[in-house]
Amino acid sequence: MPSNISIEGSKILRVPKTMDVEALKQRLNGAGQGHLLQFWDSLSSEEQTAFFNELSHMNFEEINGFFETAMQSLKHVADKIDDLLEPLPADVCGSVTRTDHQKQQEYTATGLQAIGSSSVAVLLLAGGQGTRLGVGYPKGMYNVDLPSAKTLYQLQAERILKVQENAKEHTGKSCEVPWYIMTSEHTKEPTRQFFASHNYFGLKESNVVLFEQNLLPCIGFDGKIFLANPHKVALAPDGNGGLYRALRSSIVLADMERRGIQYVHVYCVDNILVKMADPLFLGFCINKGANCGAKVVEKGFPTEAVGVVCKVEGKYQVVEYSEITLPTAEKRNSDGRLTFNAGNICNHFFTMDFLKMVSDPSQESQLKHHVAKKKIPHVNAAGEQMKPNEPNGIKMEKFVFDVFHFTTTFAVWEVLREEEFSPLKNADGAAKDTPTTCRSDLYNLHRSWLQRAGATFTHNDGSPIPPIASSNSSNAGAGDSQRTCEEFNEIVCEVSPLVSYGGEGLDTIVHGKSFLPPVCMERDGAGKVKVTNGTS
Amino acid sequence: MPSNISIEGSKILRVPKTMDVEALKQRLNGAGQGHLLQFWDSLSSEEQTAFFNELSHMNFEEINGFFETAMQSLKHVADKIDDLLEPLPADVCGSVTRTDHQKQQEYTATGLQAIGSSSVAVLLLAGGQGTRLGVGYPKGMYNVDLPSAKTLYQLQAERILKVQENAKEHTGKSCEVPWYIMTSEHTKEPTRQFFASHNYFGLKESNVVLFEQNLLPCIGFDGKIFLANPHKVALAPDGNGGLYRALRSSIVLADMERRGIQYVHVYCVDNILVKMADPLFLGFCINKGANCGAKVVEKGFPTEAVGVVCKVEGKYQVVEYSEITLPTAEKRNSDGRLTFNAGNICNHFFTMDFLKMVSDPSQESQLKHHVAKKKIPHVNAAGEQMKPNEPNGIKMEKFVFDVFHFTTTFAVWEVLREEEFSPLKNADGAAKDTPTTCRSDLYNLHRSWLQRAGATFTHNDGSPIPPIASSNSSNAGAGDSQRTCEEFNEIVCEVSPLVSYGGEGLDTIVHGKSFLPPVCMERDGAGKVKVTNGTS
Repeated sequence: MPSNISIEGSKILRVPKTMDVEALKQRLNGAGQGHLLQFWDSLSSEEQTAFFNELSHMNFEEINGFFETAMQSLKHVADKIDDLLEPLPADVCGSVTRTDHQKQQEYTATGLQAIGSSSVAVLLLAGGQGTRLGVGYPKGMYNVDLPSAKTLYQLQAERILKVQENAKEHTGKSCEVPWYIMTSEHTKEPTRQFFASHNYFGLKESNVVLFEQNLLPCIGFDGKIFLANPHKVALAPDGNGGLYRALRSSIVLADMERRGIQYVHVYCVDNILVKMADPLFLGFCINKGANCGAKVVEKGFPTEAVGVVCKVEGKYQVVEYSEITLPTAEKRNSDGRLTFNAGNICNHFFTMDFLKMVSDPSQESQLKHHVAKKKIPHVNAAGEQMKPNEPNGIKMEKFVFDVFHFTTTFAVWEVLREEEFSPLKNADGAAKDTPTTCRSDLYNLHRSWLQRAGATFTHNDGSPIPPIASSNSSNAGAGDSQRTCEEFNEIVCEVSPLVSYGGEGLDTIVHGKSFLPPVCMERDGAGKVKVTNGTS
Repeated sequence: MPSNISIEGSKILRVPKTMDVEALKQRLNGAGQGHLLQFWDSLSSEEQTAFFNELSHMNFEEINGFFETAMQSLKHVADKIDDLLEPLPADVCGSVTRTDHQKQQEYTATGLQAIGSSSVAVLLLAGGQGTRLGVGYPKGMYNVDLPSAKTLYQLQAERILKVQENAKEHTGKSCEVPWYIMTSEHTKEPTRQFFASHNYFGLKESNVVLFEQNLLPCIGFDGKIFLANPHKVALAPDGNGGLYRALRSSIVLADMERRGIQYVHVYCVDNILVKMADPLFLGFCINKGANCGAKVVEKGFPTEAVGVVCKVEGKYQVVEYSEITLPTAEKRNSDGRLTFNAGNICNHFFTMDFLKMVSDPSQESQLKHHVAKKKIPHVNAAGEQMKPNEPNGIKMEKFVFDVFHFTTTFAVWEVLREEEFSPLKNADGAAKDTPTTCRSDLYNLHRSWLQRAGATFTHNDGSPIPPIASSNSSNAGAGDSQRTCEEFNEIVCEVSPLVSYGGEGLDTIVHGKSFLPPVCMERDGAGKVKVTNGTS
């Protein structure tokens, strides 16, 4: 079993017998990876035990096979598929801006019904580290500095709580939306501890299920696996598409079946506006009879760093940057819109049957690894730690959307970026996708919720702040520096997910009232909504 | 003459005679502004002279009239005009994404022809200070930290130089595009010195014409004009729409006529991507027979801080935040686009005849002031400097687009935001419109120019950087922190305006070549293009 899924206590560590070490050596030599044991004799007994265990669980024939295929694919990276691209057929698409209102209400009702029957799960892809963000802990633990100081994990937990309540209100039945969280070696323990120490943010502990994705060795261009140190292989997570393999080798699918889950909403950790188990998206996919679905936003401009959902030779696919040329990315319809504009935001719908099907080895093994050349730190033959300045090997990843290939009943739901997509990718100082832009996008959305519900925002002197910020600032004059906050369009307004999931239910609380920013709406233990603002 | 336009040497300062001071006193008392002289007896002779001069040039009856109208308009600020809004008629609109290619080439040819005949001027609105940006000098002097270290003024100067060259190449005739720069009391001297010390960035000194917009007193809610100090009125610029009054009372219109200017492109200083005298925009407006035109971008989302060009009761208008409700801003057509989506980016086309017409007092006086409540620093009756925490008075401004009201032959040209609009409004740290976002937007645009011209960008190891950045970063693993620059989509690439105005003319220089970022293309004194990149 080439799995690194550790169900606690399932690994039996024992000092390897000489006989077993010899057998491993032969197996490694046969696979051309004998160098991995070059430091064996200098290792301590504990190191030998752990290392033997790690290597024993690896399937080197399979890894070598991945490598061969990966190197082949690198040669073909310049082959563009522009001519094969087809836009999405109209009948698989829906949109919050183009689908009629009544239809959308039907979809929402269907979604709430499914959630209300406890047949919906959410599944979070959280194996990534916060490297680009500049933090040493999982991204979900990041606090973008909202007034509430809530982390991404807490916001998401509370959205689950709220959508459960909304479904209960709709159906009259209590329900549960279990939360499966795919971690990696790097993120599993901190994530587990974080949830435990925060009492699962009000969710039932049994409804928060952590599991771990696989790791794959980092391999040099010569096919030799790197050592991270003399007694450890250099490993990297196998991509968010490692989900399917992890599902197969963990207890997750069985757990879902036991609970009677029929629909799964899969998403990435970093989108601060993510609507987990969004009833509208779920209902749209269910009513379409789809076994696989994607939520998308309109791509902003041709070179935006976003994959595009489209069709290639009759199969659905997310087309990435390296696969098309700039002219194809720039192609437009007669109405001026980009021809390939369904921007993938990593929000996917799967039926249970589809998930089982694609996690089966017969299907999963058809998903090719995406290959990236990387600078891989390692120990060299002299036992020295090396930090290369140039790429020296490859990392192999599968992507979660690769399984679109297998669906024949697809559904694509387009939403508005300002309402549903603001990813946290970079540290402040970058031009986009920073803690500051996430915070600002959340404030703007929540302010628009309150305004739609009939609230007014005011200046210190009681005069109203207009719903749309002024664009006229040509002549900053006396006293203007004091208006900074408004002119940045940064009117602080945070609504707890426990108060509203997507803007609903605010009318009775705020209609006709005015608020002085900063505004923060929270719900106390007794279920009472409390509004803190500048006047309180 | 209530003008503060100072043509150097035209103000004759003389010690006022007692008789004249008495007359001024009576005039002030008659206008209810007698308090302005409350400190008169304690002023030095120089202070008296300067203050007498300032007050003598003010038309208090007119100012009181403005105040009355302004206070009336404040009462009606809650009156929404939602029901009166009409979208733009299709026949006044064109778009870089919807108008056919050949038509666009015709427009460009028309524009180049007009520029080539020296009948086009550009006019910059630069009366604003860099308050929000956090600097004490005019915004045009700001350097966003491009590799070239060019300021906004220099980028703009070089775009004028290049568009002159392009027009010459098209028509075979040398031509000149004079540059009129409207400054204010705050920005005039630093701007003048900046241009002089930089030798007008290669432009002819006589083609850079600075003029000054008017100032208006800041007035308390009680109608009393504030004193900034015991011998100076608190003044603020009268808005970028002060242009028309400034044109009237300066030599600018006469200067334009002397040069045979027929078309004027008016724009704001802060857009780092601004295409000055854009031949395509000019040609579109000219071919449409328009006397007034606006360049717009599609509004991004309903609450975006951008005015919207539309029609109100048969007249063209930019509708601002305070004039409509959120539901109107959120209204969409059946294709999902915002109904009112022509986002004003302060790029206007005027014929000379139109400019003369709207600058005439009979028309200009019809333009109402926009009123904003402000916290106005002042000296109180006890002679103490006051910095209020609450708004204590009003500032009155006209907006440059207010004259759309007067056109019956309007033209609206829609362009792509990523190609033409990235304003510098805030200091780094804000969520948008910062030096960092300006820089990033310029790099992305210039990189796409080079890519379209057949260039490739490479990593250190010579492997190509894809034209569109990757969106897959779910699993940051070994070595990923070293890819930061690319993953930020911040591949440094700057093309001097002297090399290319809008992406043209690069094929022969870069086709088939590859570049290692940072890339910087400049033209030397001999006209030779030099490319600096990571390998050089």
